[in-house]
Amino acid sequence: MPERGDIEAFYRGFQARFAAGIESMDGAAMFVSDVWDRPGGGGGDTRILTDGTHVEKAAVNFSAVHGETPAKLSERMASMGDRFYATGVSIIVHPRNPYAPTFHANVRYFESDEAAWFGGGADLTPYYLFEDDARHFHRVLADVCDRHDVADHMRWKRACDEYFHLPHRGEARGVGGLFFDHLTESLDAVWSFQRDLADHLLDAYLPILERRAGTPYGNRETEWHRIRRGRYVEFNLVWDRGTRFGLETGGRTESILGSLPPVAAWSYDHEPDPDSPEGELLAFVRGEPRDWI
Amino acid sequence: MPERGDIEAFYRGFQARFAAGIESMDGAAMFVSDVWDRPGGGGGDTRILTDGTHVEKAAVNFSAVHGETPAKLSERMASMGDRFYATGVSIIVHPRNPYAPTFHANVRYFESDEAAWFGGGADLTPYYLFEDDARHFHRVLADVCDRHDVADHMRWKRACDEYFHLPHRGEARGVGGLFFDHLTESLDAVWSFQRDLADHLLDAYLPILERRAGTPYGNRETEWHRIRRGRYVEFNLVWDRGTRFGLETGGRTESILGSLPPVAAWSYDHEPDPDSPEGELLAFVRGEPRDWI
Repeated sequence: MPERGDIEAFYRGFQARFAAGIESMDGAAMFVSDVWDRPGGGGGDTRILTDGTHVEKAAVNFSAVHGETPAKLSERMASMGDRFYATGVSIIVHPRNPYAPTFHANVRYFESDEAAWFGGGADLTPYYLFEDDARHFHRVLADVCDRHDVADHMRWKRACDEYFHLPHRGEARGVGGLFFDHLTESLDAVWSFQRDLADHLLDAYLPILERRAGTPYGNRETEWHRIRRGRYVEFNLVWDRGTRFGLETGGRTESILGSLPPVAAWSYDHEPDPDSPEGELLAFVRGEPRDWI
Repeated sequence: MPERGDIEAFYRGFQARFAAGIESMDGAAMFVSDVWDRPGGGGGDTRILTDGTHVEKAAVNFSAVHGETPAKLSERMASMGDRFYATGVSIIVHPRNPYAPTFHANVRYFESDEAAWFGGGADLTPYYLFEDDARHFHRVLADVCDRHDVADHMRWKRACDEYFHLPHRGEARGVGGLFFDHLTESLDAVWSFQRDLADHLLDAYLPILERRAGTPYGNRETEWHRIRRGRYVEFNLVWDRGTRFGLETGGRTESILGSLPPVAAWSYDHEPDPDSPEGELLAFVRGEPRDWI
């Protein structure tokens, strides 16, 4: 059985390595660390990068919190017990260039009096559709899964498509990735899988960021970028369970909303030309999820 | 008892008059009407103004819908009956100038098999605090209330402060106004009050918009404006009951989200100098609601 101390130590190291990889790619901006305590027990280290050359905003947040189980959590999950412990790293990268996709991932571990489990995942949100990017991203995630008997790539790929969906828009958030939760069995094997996944998230994302970050763009792309970033805000504030749960139970607002894009726009009934690259992205997110491998 | 036909006719007239008042003040942009049908029964007329001289975005939306009571509504309110009818006008005005406040109001009428009621209100969200503006706004609303025995200004002013509150920020949305709902008794008198209120909303807002719309401003004010507009997005998507209910029950997304600002920004842990005008606004929204009259 993996122990809290080992998990936290790995997560802290993963946070540092992932942040260093983003800083190295950006070449200019650095993460700023904001260490905080949670009044009810535990705390975290929120690391934010702002206004980089290629990365407009990124958050790589570690937390390890514990205490009395919030009433909202007991209501939602049976047999939670009176006390909980949760640790994890959550990541969001919002590139400046509209041709470079937004990256999101998290790895987490949870314990109650009754059970312990892992969860996590990674997904990609492009503003323009590049099939090569989606294939590369899914390929890296599938390869990690293939190395572990406990990993069910097909199922977790579909779970990701189902989760990152905006019912009020009839749209997917992006091209998906991997989503898993409540893995309560074979915890040693799951822990081994989760470390392998964390260790390959830079491989999944950085090559894509690197090849798109220098694409020339103008006002047209910036406007579209902002409108699609508005969808990102809608998903996170209306549908994302973690965000809503955090905001409703007195979580640390600035850490939770560190995921929001630097700027977003709303334009009434904006419908791009179906034959344009913007229209192609929209048709994709409104269609059935694709198998990328 | 007021009848559906009379109520709808008044609401349509009110929509036209309010929109004309905004157009006349702006002097350049016009509302564009988007008439829609609701598959389950009824429809609406969504009117949007974009990119005006003084008004960056405004929505003045009429709807009259009916049909089978959505399951979500039956769950939330006892004795809803099987069929419902709802009509109303909702308004949002986002001025371009950061010194001019955002205005929001709505008037609505609801019928189920079991009951009928009116609801509505108006509130003001400044980005910089001008006490004269808040006093004028509350004065006009209080004067309307004073003309009607059924109106309880003190209570509805407090209800507005309670409703337009962001628990996750510990902030008020703005300087408040009036909020009332489920007025099921003395419907003729309530209807008379609601018409009087609707007829004075331009008086409550336009003089404020007129005196602030020409204030010189630069990047500093624009940045602050966008960050506070982010709070507007957070309130509407996380806490506003009408918005959430609409999005969760398959309401018309573009009409519901017509309330969102044209642009919004998020900046990690943004804290203005407490002695600055931005800091003054923040101290106000974090403090106890004030009596403006």
